[in-house]
Amino acid sequence: MRVLAAQLAEYVGQKVTVAGWVHRRRQLKSVTFVIIRDRSGLTQVVTNDSSVMEQVTEVPEETVVEITGVIMANPQAPAGVELTEPAISFLSDPAAPPPFDIYRPSVTATLPVILDNAPVALRHPRLRAPFEIAAASTAGFRAALERLQFTEISTPKIVRSATESGANVFAIDYFGHPAYLAQSPQFYKQTMVGVFERVYEVGPVFRAEPHDTARHLAEYTSMDAELGFITDHHDVMAVLTEVVTGMIEAARAYVGSALEVLGIELPPLPIGIPEIDFAEAQELIAKNGAEDPRGEPDLAPAHERWLCEWALREFDSQFLFVTGYPMAKRPFYTHPDPQRPEYSNSFDLLFRGQELVTGGQRLHRYSDYLAALTARNENPANYATYLAAFEHGMPPHGGFAIGLERWVSRLMMADNIRYATLFPRDIQRLEP
Amino acid sequence: MRVLAAQLAEYVGQKVTVAGWVHRRRQLKSVTFVIIRDRSGLTQVVTNDSSVMEQVTEVPEETVVEITGVIMANPQAPAGVELTEPAISFLSDPAAPPPFDIYRPSVTATLPVILDNAPVALRHPRLRAPFEIAAASTAGFRAALERLQFTEISTPKIVRSATESGANVFAIDYFGHPAYLAQSPQFYKQTMVGVFERVYEVGPVFRAEPHDTARHLAEYTSMDAELGFITDHHDVMAVLTEVVTGMIEAARAYVGSALEVLGIELPPLPIGIPEIDFAEAQELIAKNGAEDPRGEPDLAPAHERWLCEWALREFDSQFLFVTGYPMAKRPFYTHPDPQRPEYSNSFDLLFRGQELVTGGQRLHRYSDYLAALTARNENPANYATYLAAFEHGMPPHGGFAIGLERWVSRLMMADNIRYATLFPRDIQRLEP
Repeated sequence: MRVLAAQLAEYVGQKVTVAGWVHRRRQLKSVTFVIIRDRSGLTQVVTNDSSVMEQVTEVPEETVVEITGVIMANPQAPAGVELTEPAISFLSDPAAPPPFDIYRPSVTATLPVILDNAPVALRHPRLRAPFEIAAASTAGFRAALERLQFTEISTPKIVRSATESGANVFAIDYFGHPAYLAQSPQFYKQTMVGVFERVYEVGPVFRAEPHDTARHLAEYTSMDAELGFITDHHDVMAVLTEVVTGMIEAARAYVGSALEVLGIELPPLPIGIPEIDFAEAQELIAKNGAEDPRGEPDLAPAHERWLCEWALREFDSQFLFVTGYPMAKRPFYTHPDPQRPEYSNSFDLLFRGQELVTGGQRLHRYSDYLAALTARNENPANYATYLAAFEHGMPPHGGFAIGLERWVSRLMMADNIRYATLFPRDIQRLEP
Repeated sequence: MRVLAAQLAEYVGQKVTVAGWVHRRRQLKSVTFVIIRDRSGLTQVVTNDSSVMEQVTEVPEETVVEITGVIMANPQAPAGVELTEPAISFLSDPAAPPPFDIYRPSVTATLPVILDNAPVALRHPRLRAPFEIAAASTAGFRAALERLQFTEISTPKIVRSATESGANVFAIDYFGHPAYLAQSPQFYKQTMVGVFERVYEVGPVFRAEPHDTARHLAEYTSMDAELGFITDHHDVMAVLTEVVTGMIEAARAYVGSALEVLGIELPPLPIGIPEIDFAEAQELIAKNGAEDPRGEPDLAPAHERWLCEWALREFDSQFLFVTGYPMAKRPFYTHPDPQRPEYSNSFDLLFRGQELVTGGQRLHRYSDYLAALTARNENPANYATYLAAFEHGMPPHGGFAIGLERWVSRLMMADNIRYATLFPRDIQRLEP
């Protein structure tokens, strides 16, 4: 029976077997230390037996071994215990040297080296930690929505037309016919409100982003939700607040050590996220900022940063809702503000200086869709199967999408989203 | 405040608001009934008010309405209560007639009509139910693996080479370079065992299946798991048994009404799934069946059916493990049986007449990979980033993949897997 590093303190005085990767060897004159890494942590193995000491010289770092020995208390060792009288056997061939030292507390490799060697590089506890946080966040996202009676769905990633935005889609050869990779599950999740009322999906989305930046990916994980029978976008924002709360709580509950390795301080639970209207936000920035943003249909990155600093100062909140964006820059299915038809029932959720979530109320009347598409010189016939749902009766509804990698990247304040992406895809990179 | 159909019994004598789709109108001479459908069930609304009766004539089935009225007990009504003195308001435009009657207990449409009109057709409770079972099964899959300390990962669906099988891949134009849609997360989940030890993923996989059958899809949801530090494939089978148990338990706990609508009897919890060796299974079939399968490297569908009947008869089990398939028909990364190198440490899990899961132990030594690829006349250089993980030390490991749609399809004994697929993709179908 294998015992994990984290459980060893319960076995003082007993003979146990541990297994894992040789994290580090320290061979002194009369004593040799071997640190074994497993999924739960590190185990210190110590020996002064000359034949074992000699054997260790043939066990390079990253080799996988199984070691049986006696656990002894030692306050100097990583977990307060160490394994003594070791008998070592190999579970893998002797490992080739890794592209950089996995055992050093800090990461000595550059991002390209890390990405090129991801299968090995991600073994470094600091590089692995973001993905433990991602897994916990996803679990928190799902748990919050399950509590609210949302149904999980799987929608197709191969789609017939590039209708949502037209640009930046990947084309595929579908049995000799043209097809595309879905940029979002937007149309499907809306129509599924007609079936389940409340739906969510966690899955890949694809953007043929021609930009090579620290923020863009060609494939990322979108966490989507959509719900019916809302009054307006504030009902959607209330669900999103619960979801973000669930994600933070899950990270705290499940991956404390990953947070610690990265020195992440989680934001306080967002009880009552402050909200500012888009037009008021622009006025505020105009009064206080260098540059007057009024007349612009969207917020520039600098404005988002300014507003986040303002929300932190005024409300002690790391989150801020901006509502009522102009219709002009929002997609055709956006529901207008009934009082101010130039503005929309939409929102962005800003977090630590960046937009984290976009969402809002959607149109739900068939007649409104026909009018909206016609006004944009689009042919409703190109949207026939999507529009069928509205023609056959849909409730007022809305939803949102969170980019998983962006969320983790903001939590850890990474300077590049690729630190939060297992195997990034971008204009330069298709491997590993 | 909206009250759901399932909660109405708690509101007898009170004025409440319900909202949903007009499921069915029954307009008699002196009384009109309207059945409202929401995500929890059906509400009977009754009125003899002539102005409301007239209003109902203008509210076609599938129109979305909000109705306020007083809840009264009525043992004849669906949930023992009905809504009286209704005041009706529209939440959608009056709905166009659906492609077939959503309100009839049985489905009167053919499969092509259902698929062509999925956004509306899936509102039928019998057609919606499989997806509620799918959602619960997925939750059960994840919960079982989380209990066993597996980490959820997201691996890329756009990949550089079609290495796993070579055939039946979808090609994409990746910024002017050729790329492919991943047929499985196999290589990624294996390398991530080197990082997390135990990983799982629920996500889309893509097969350019040229077959137009009741069992094949071009895109489906694969539930993948992989774990390190195993002795052999029996450790993987033990995890799979817990996972299948979790999936059944979740369906029972969360979606009882969906099971009831479809008349599904769940299999008993599979405590100790019987196991038969491939060669022994062939002998058994040869002794009892019409056709002698010996010498064949795989089981034919008829043999799988025969074995399932045998397991039900002999062990009262709807599940059966077949182990030790010949190496010849298994992929290059399959671990041989150390005692019989022509046979493998692999397994299939059969369920109700079909293969449900394929899995096994994988090779883990770098030298074994080089030998296996060379023996198959493959160039190891084409697998460089995958092989890097093994070169740098990997433990003995194995895993399995369950097709979500096939699982649900078998549970409901559907004659076509498309009844368990929201928006199927196949050689004929790319829409909706």
